[in-house]
Amino acid sequence: MTAVRRIGLDIGGTKMLALLADETGQILARSETATPSRSGPRAILDAAARIVREVAGPGLIARVGVGTAGIVDHRTGTILSATDALPGWAGTEVALELSALLDGALVSVVNDVVAFSIGEGRFGAAAGYDSFVAVTVGTGVGGAVVVDGTPLVGAHHLAGHVGHMAVPQAGDRACPCGRKGHVESIASGTAMVETYRLAGGHADTLVDVAAALRAGDERAADAVRLAGQGLGTALASLANAVDPRVIVVGGGALNVGELLLAQTRTAFAQTALEPLVGVEIRPALLPGHAVALGATLLGEARAPGIPALPRRPSRTDRLTPDPNHSSRGDS
Amino acid sequence: MTAVRRIGLDIGGTKMLALLADETGQILARSETATPSRSGPRAILDAAARIVREVAGPGLIARVGVGTAGIVDHRTGTILSATDALPGWAGTEVALELSALLDGALVSVVNDVVAFSIGEGRFGAAAGYDSFVAVTVGTGVGGAVVVDGTPLVGAHHLAGHVGHMAVPQAGDRACPCGRKGHVESIASGTAMVETYRLAGGHADTLVDVAAALRAGDERAADAVRLAGQGLGTALASLANAVDPRVIVVGGGALNVGELLLAQTRTAFAQTALEPLVGVEIRPALLPGHAVALGATLLGEARAPGIPALPRRPSRTDRLTPDPNHSSRGDS
Repeated sequence: MTAVRRIGLDIGGTKMLALLADETGQILARSETATPSRSGPRAILDAAARIVREVAGPGLIARVGVGTAGIVDHRTGTILSATDALPGWAGTEVALELSALLDGALVSVVNDVVAFSIGEGRFGAAAGYDSFVAVTVGTGVGGAVVVDGTPLVGAHHLAGHVGHMAVPQAGDRACPCGRKGHVESIASGTAMVETYRLAGGHADTLVDVAAALRAGDERAADAVRLAGQGLGTALASLANAVDPRVIVVGGGALNVGELLLAQTRTAFAQTALEPLVGVEIRPALLPGHAVALGATLLGEARAPGIPALPRRPSRTDRLTPDPNHSSRGDS
Repeated sequence: MTAVRRIGLDIGGTKMLALLADETGQILARSETATPSRSGPRAILDAAARIVREVAGPGLIARVGVGTAGIVDHRTGTILSATDALPGWAGTEVALELSALLDGALVSVVNDVVAFSIGEGRFGAAAGYDSFVAVTVGTGVGGAVVVDGTPLVGAHHLAGHVGHMAVPQAGDRACPCGRKGHVESIASGTAMVETYRLAGGHADTLVDVAAALRAGDERAADAVRLAGQGLGTALASLANAVDPRVIVVGGGALNVGELLLAQTRTAFAQTALEPLVGVEIRPALLPGHAVALGATLLGEARAPGIPALPRRPSRTDRLTPDPNHSSRGDS
């Protein structure tokens, strides 16, 4: 029984979620807490370890999978860079430190959208498909490109940054990354609020834009349409280049209304090559817990392509990365 | 000796090239002929078989790799679709028919840009890199995305259609594929000629645009700059999504002048995420024979990810595709 119980942890900018699940994706226990993001990495890791222990129950914890905001070196479980949502998170040795807090548990760490793609790919909207694109539309626009069951990692641990594809609709809008014209600058929740404001609307958050949209405010509809046009164009460009079987869209910004996905699909069909027009753009099926559920699969021998960490992370392993060592741990 | 001699064939819209090469990429024999494209598939295949026999010399031919224009089902060696450059080519069972013409030789067939990426990846500008993007700029803009040594095939055999990514610079320009705003509509050789003409320049081919560029005609420079801006933007969008280690650009349109790659690199740096700005955009190193040389590697057990065909293509194999059978032939 114990062998098939798995723990996954989602570390986001505002909250953290730990899950205990079985191999079918059935959730056996969950614990959530606000991320103490302003208190620094140590506080985040302490809180993370606490909710992991809560779902694990008594006894030694063998293994924990983590999906976290930021760019992650999944071989070492270290954060390479992170946004302002998690100050000081860059450089944090999450695998090593969390392992120490959990009595030597094997900790595997990946980017949260990668974990999202694993969750949706195994248990959600892309279940049964080995090649797909996953995007999340929230504060930003994140993504993962899954090929033959494996999310691409990339040469600089950056693969999947779909939000930073250039689209015509974005014009010179500034992207949080510092560039201009990226789809994130018009398609994120933050961007939709900004577009609505630029048109004279009053909104603090996307909830306000959604309310205005429901009330028939055309400026809100325009802001959502612009987001969908950009998103559909970027997804079509990516589909033409990597030819996925299906596309999964998740993230909190979907709550703005059906219009977002509808416009995304329309724009996709206008730019996708003819044989790809039928590629489905599906809403994610695991709202709020795809990252944590996907993380439960990390480190498994059968996990989709994400190698396990070494049995016990050590400074030697981290300083002399060996492309082979990372798959030894779980064999 | 015979075991390491390999035959590769490049079937293009205007000419065909057959090579005999050894395992180091050394060319032992070559034969070239004009593609009898207006005479139909049978004439093309007859001419192809002839130049293959010329490079092979006397005796039975064991194996031939083919890179061809068009979208290819590499499992069956059948052309799924092709442009007007090869009328009637779509539907041609290249592997089956060429095998019959060559006394049962094992024939493996892939798209020509896929073969290009294998050639440049093993012997050319991307040698030593396992993850890279290859693009060819000629009559159109083709591409291949190579991940862990394997060119992506895609769910509809379409992966790598980099020329059909949307870029802001293309506006509403019509793409040969029927869509608007794709990078091919401004960045191909054909498109550069069109841009130059739209500005009032007189040119029949890209050679004329190149001459005008050398003569200081700013309209020619603008046409080339527009192409480079589009290409650099598309490559940066793709790099942000798949994170390659290096980018290789080949194709006849590079002959227009250094300005094309220079502008491509400038535009790339403006759109690529900061950690990717240093990704090199290199000119291809095997001008004119990367496709045929890459094709020599098809069907090899060690070929980069492209499965061999079954030992003897048969109607049964083709009608009941089995994802496993295609790797049996060469084991």
